[in-house]
Amino acid sequence: MVMIQSWVTSANGSDCPFPLNNLPYGVFSTSDGDSRCGVAIGDMILDVRGCEQSGLIDLDGPALFDKPHWNALMTAGQPVWRQLRRRLTELLSEPSREKSRLRSLLVAHSSVTLHLPFEVAEFTDFYAGRHHATNVGTMFRGAENALPPNWLHMPIGYNGRASSVVVSGTSIRRPWGQLKGPNDNTPRFAPSARFDLELELGAIVGVDSATPVSVDRADQMIFGYVLLNDWSARDIQAWEYQPLGPFQAKATATSISPWIVTKAALEPFRCDTPERDFPLLAHIRDTTPMLYDIDLTVQLAPQDRIPTTIARTNYREMYYSSAQQLAHHSSSGCPMRTGDLLGSGTISGAEKHQRGAMLELSWGGAEPITLDSGENRCFIEDGDTVTLSGAAHGDGYIIGFGDCYGVVLPAFDDPYQR
Amino acid sequence: MVMIQSWVTSANGSDCPFPLNNLPYGVFSTSDGDSRCGVAIGDMILDVRGCEQSGLIDLDGPALFDKPHWNALMTAGQPVWRQLRRRLTELLSEPSREKSRLRSLLVAHSSVTLHLPFEVAEFTDFYAGRHHATNVGTMFRGAENALPPNWLHMPIGYNGRASSVVVSGTSIRRPWGQLKGPNDNTPRFAPSARFDLELELGAIVGVDSATPVSVDRADQMIFGYVLLNDWSARDIQAWEYQPLGPFQAKATATSISPWIVTKAALEPFRCDTPERDFPLLAHIRDTTPMLYDIDLTVQLAPQDRIPTTIARTNYREMYYSSAQQLAHHSSSGCPMRTGDLLGSGTISGAEKHQRGAMLELSWGGAEPITLDSGENRCFIEDGDTVTLSGAAHGDGYIIGFGDCYGVVLPAFDDPYQR
Repeated sequence: MVMIQSWVTSANGSDCPFPLNNLPYGVFSTSDGDSRCGVAIGDMILDVRGCEQSGLIDLDGPALFDKPHWNALMTAGQPVWRQLRRRLTELLSEPSREKSRLRSLLVAHSSVTLHLPFEVAEFTDFYAGRHHATNVGTMFRGAENALPPNWLHMPIGYNGRASSVVVSGTSIRRPWGQLKGPNDNTPRFAPSARFDLELELGAIVGVDSATPVSVDRADQMIFGYVLLNDWSARDIQAWEYQPLGPFQAKATATSISPWIVTKAALEPFRCDTPERDFPLLAHIRDTTPMLYDIDLTVQLAPQDRIPTTIARTNYREMYYSSAQQLAHHSSSGCPMRTGDLLGSGTISGAEKHQRGAMLELSWGGAEPITLDSGENRCFIEDGDTVTLSGAAHGDGYIIGFGDCYGVVLPAFDDPYQR
Repeated sequence: MVMIQSWVTSANGSDCPFPLNNLPYGVFSTSDGDSRCGVAIGDMILDVRGCEQSGLIDLDGPALFDKPHWNALMTAGQPVWRQLRRRLTELLSEPSREKSRLRSLLVAHSSVTLHLPFEVAEFTDFYAGRHHATNVGTMFRGAENALPPNWLHMPIGYNGRASSVVVSGTSIRRPWGQLKGPNDNTPRFAPSARFDLELELGAIVGVDSATPVSVDRADQMIFGYVLLNDWSARDIQAWEYQPLGPFQAKATATSISPWIVTKAALEPFRCDTPERDFPLLAHIRDTTPMLYDIDLTVQLAPQDRIPTTIARTNYREMYYSSAQQLAHHSSSGCPMRTGDLLGSGTISGAEKHQRGAMLELSWGGAEPITLDSGENRCFIEDGDTVTLSGAAHGDGYIIGFGDCYGVVLPAFDDPYQR
């Protein structure tokens, strides 16, 4: 696969995150506050609602872009997804007969506000990175119980909170919660002192299914991917998580990047899952290279300071793919719906600098990391900005994810006085 | 509180579940398939959409009943909830000036199909019954670890799956899942052999909150209650639940009773939570009698056989109220929304016949229960119908919940051939 040239020339740079090969889907507004669907191309955004209204995009059927989210296109199904991608490629590639009409529908990326690109139906978070699960398990339960016995046989996950999902750029308020340290006699209610990030990829389910789906069908059902930061209060988590799993520790906020990178754009970057210790059961077994080769970084910037890259890893480190997770999710007959968001689980590599959470990077706070500004960090401090970035690297082009960032604000003095 | 007499005379019987004191909210359709909001009164249902359209109900503002669910009324807030209840009481009590107009808007309960009464935003399931938690903890982790250390300090809960919520009467398909018994070398994928019920009360959040709420505010936010059966595959649960909690074991279906019994109707039945072993932290501490005196039963009927009442208990057995659960749920800043459904957790009493799950009644399958038909049961078998019932007993009247029932169908031969 090589770069497809666009007449929007900013899309043709070898380091442009949004070349014509990408075409990620978002929702934007300009100063008039009118939110609408758009596609990123170079440093511009094509107003897709405007294209539909003016007939430049006509996918036979009811309007798909009259609402400020991509759910209607998702519901329309895979043939329509392909139709839209073909049409967008046609409109934006060189030569195009529609240049002059399209120019009036292009808006500079720099002049817009981005919004959540889809309505989140439900949010499920998995725990499918082996290095992460081993590291966290070692810290929470000791090395001998690090990886639970079920872990190598199925993608372990839990239901998260859809209402917590916010778009990149939204400030994150440090949560209060019930805390009890190992040496405390009684719990107390206080701001979290161990607030953390989790570097994840989020898969978006495009179409409904009321019955169990195979891995191949699950793969077809996935519409696209976003970067996802599953903000986590480790002190709340440690006290609450037994026996029913994380709850308030993960409910404050979940940030996602503003652009849905479609599965179609990622197809050239497929790669295999790792060797299995045990063969997987048939209904979740790999059927094709199921992961993607996506380079990922985490940056942390203290207030008014330069950012430090604190982790570099790759999505191919996962043990289970999103399709396998979705197949498992549906296996009980659990109905899956348009807009369901599946977090991959924290993506960590084998090396220390490849770890996708501060809990792992600082080994539970025992080994502070030093930032380029000279400061140390065990967990996130007030005023810190955390930024996730990601890109798949093709032959002379990249498929970029929009950054996923958020600044952590101090906890309220009294959350009940608000 | 005594019974308020209605001119719908079937509502005036001392054992009628739906007297004028109740006024529960549901959604019904007749043979024309047109679903709309209704209120149960005696053996009739008042078409509330029809009342609004004809001006008999006029609550100032946009239409509240033009959609087949009660979410719009919920969003309108507590003053409007009170206004509607006052108006319905006025219309249906004796004497009423509007009898003749109302008669044409009454439909016999026996001639309708009932639907989900509200759009479920998200579903959270708690674990707030001390007897249940102690029994299950003993079976899963041994008597010495039965009640986790956090349990007496906060309402333990996990996020469930909103897409699994179905209305009473919906058939439940026995799930497949990954199973591994204690003596198995490897897991297998098979139909659950330990399929169970859980007797719960579901609280419906009426209004949004983006910040933590106090217990008093949480109590005000609750719109009403339904009976809830959290169908549970115990064999899937035992293998999957460590370390992140129940997932596919609870995702097949969650049945709720079709009528929302409003908090207003239950006010006369408030009662205290039990004595605390430890004082609760201020943000979840009791502020008033927080539970309700609601008698509850579970019946099980094998196919073509008479039902047996297998459990009798009361909602006052809970350790934490729904308001305390909601306050805890919001404590991290987790946004709560109209239509959020909070399961109480299984309601079991101290005695063996008061246990709200077959897992407890049969002590993990070791002590089968004998039904009136002479058959034994450890867990639910194919063709069994499970029915939850509930009522609060007033002075010469009752506040009934509509039954919550479902028949369990055999697992599919191959769930992937569908």
